[in-house]
Amino acid sequence: MRVFRDTIGIRTEENQQFLDVTKQVQDVVSRSSIRNGTLLINSLHTTIALFVNEFQSALLDDLGGVLQKLVPRRDGYFHDDPRYSDCDRSNAHAHLRATLLGRPIALAVADAVVLLGQYQSVILAELDGPRDRKLQVQIVGE
Amino acid sequence: MRVFRDTIGIRTEENQQFLDVTKQVQDVVSRSSIRNGTLLINSLHTTIALFVNEFQSALLDDLGGVLQKLVPRRDGYFHDDPRYSDCDRSNAHAHLRATLLGRPIALAVADAVVLLGQYQSVILAELDGPRDRKLQVQIVGE
Amino acid sequence: MRVFRDTIGIRTEENQQFLDVTKQVQDVVSRSSIRNGTLLINSLHTTIALFVNEFQSALLDDLGGVLQKLVPRRDGYFHDDPRYSDCDRSNAHAHLRATLLGRPIALAVADAVVLLGQYQSVILAELDGPRDRKLQVQIVGE
Repeated sequence: MRVFRDTIGIRTEENQQFLDVTKQVQDVVSRSSIRNGTLLINSLHTTIALFVNEFQSALLDDLGGVLQKLVPRRDGYFHDDPRYSDCDRSNAHAHLRATLLGRPIALAVADAVVLLGQYQSVILAELDGPRDRKLQVQIVGE
Repeated sequence: MRVFRDTIGIRTEENQQFLDVTKQVQDVVSRSSIRNGTLLINSLHTTIALFVNEFQSALLDDLGGVLQKLVPRRDGYFHDDPRYSDCDRSNAHAHLRATLLGRPIALAVADAVVLLGQYQSVILAELDGPRDRKLQVQIVGE
Repeated sequence: MRVFRDTIGIRTEENQQFLDVTKQVQDVVSRSSIRNGTLLINSLHTTIALFVNEFQSALLDDLGGVLQKLVPRRDGYFHDDPRYSDCDRSNAHAHLRATLLGRPIALAVADAVVLLGQYQSVILAELDGPRDRKLQVQIVGE
């Protein structure tokens, strides 16, 4: 059993932005030389989200609309009110969207490849950018 | 350390449908002969969702209501508009519901059994059926 | 490869309550003596949720507001209606909130520490308390 760990650094460019990070994740798997095992990806941040779906521009615009409807950008949040919070970024919406949308990702590595369906991508949602972000990747296997 | 991998094939019968796949997942674990380790389940599709909760008909009807409220079936989605998308299935709602609801599942295998609580089931939500679907299952352990 | 498993018992005190369980999870990792590997946390219940974000009081009050907006406590649920369900707890909202919010958690263990970002906590959301709850934790590694 071997353990390989690496960090993916990403500079986001917009306040809210979706990026396909599948290739960067696969690159870590390739560098690990582990052929079969368990892949974990965790963002080290609380205002980005990782999820798996199709990376298509129109669909991601729709997702942006759903997020704005379910968790509006401004909605009288306590986290954005200096009486209740010392956070000065007014980013409650970003935390809340990340909480609904994001999750630590666990995927299989099979014959040195991340096991995904034909239309599946690992997608990073920047929800409070632009920022420098880091994803922690770990592979355990042989 | 051993790695066992198998695919569960499922024919869904309705456009939106919830299926309890716990037994099929347990069957893969039993076939693997791995007694303790990490179980990963990933749908290879972008319009179904996997989640863990109670498989009860009334509750799943309620979940259908919540999904329709949060992500209506028709809502002027870009993904369903031929000017913005070449997808001809008008299934934006299915992708978006899968994004909110679904996740790659990681569970423990303990003494050859999938570790779940008394009322927990692994549930597949078909969101754009009927279709032939595949779940990829991997167990790493001993 | 070693496998270590333990249960975290938690007594919740309110009907809906957020608890930071990061320390209890780290304690299991420390007891395991496993330095590198895969950590799984699964609630054994269907009306609590586990997620990862910042544990800040104002933000968690905001999350309570979002949950109430998206999945109101009373909304004519079938699960709460004795004609459709034999559940006498009227807790459909708790199942549905857990389904949207919660997930089995998979995280990396690196040099005997749970890999989390500076502001990330493992958070348990009690959605139908007060109750005695159990979290199942497993670490596979070396």
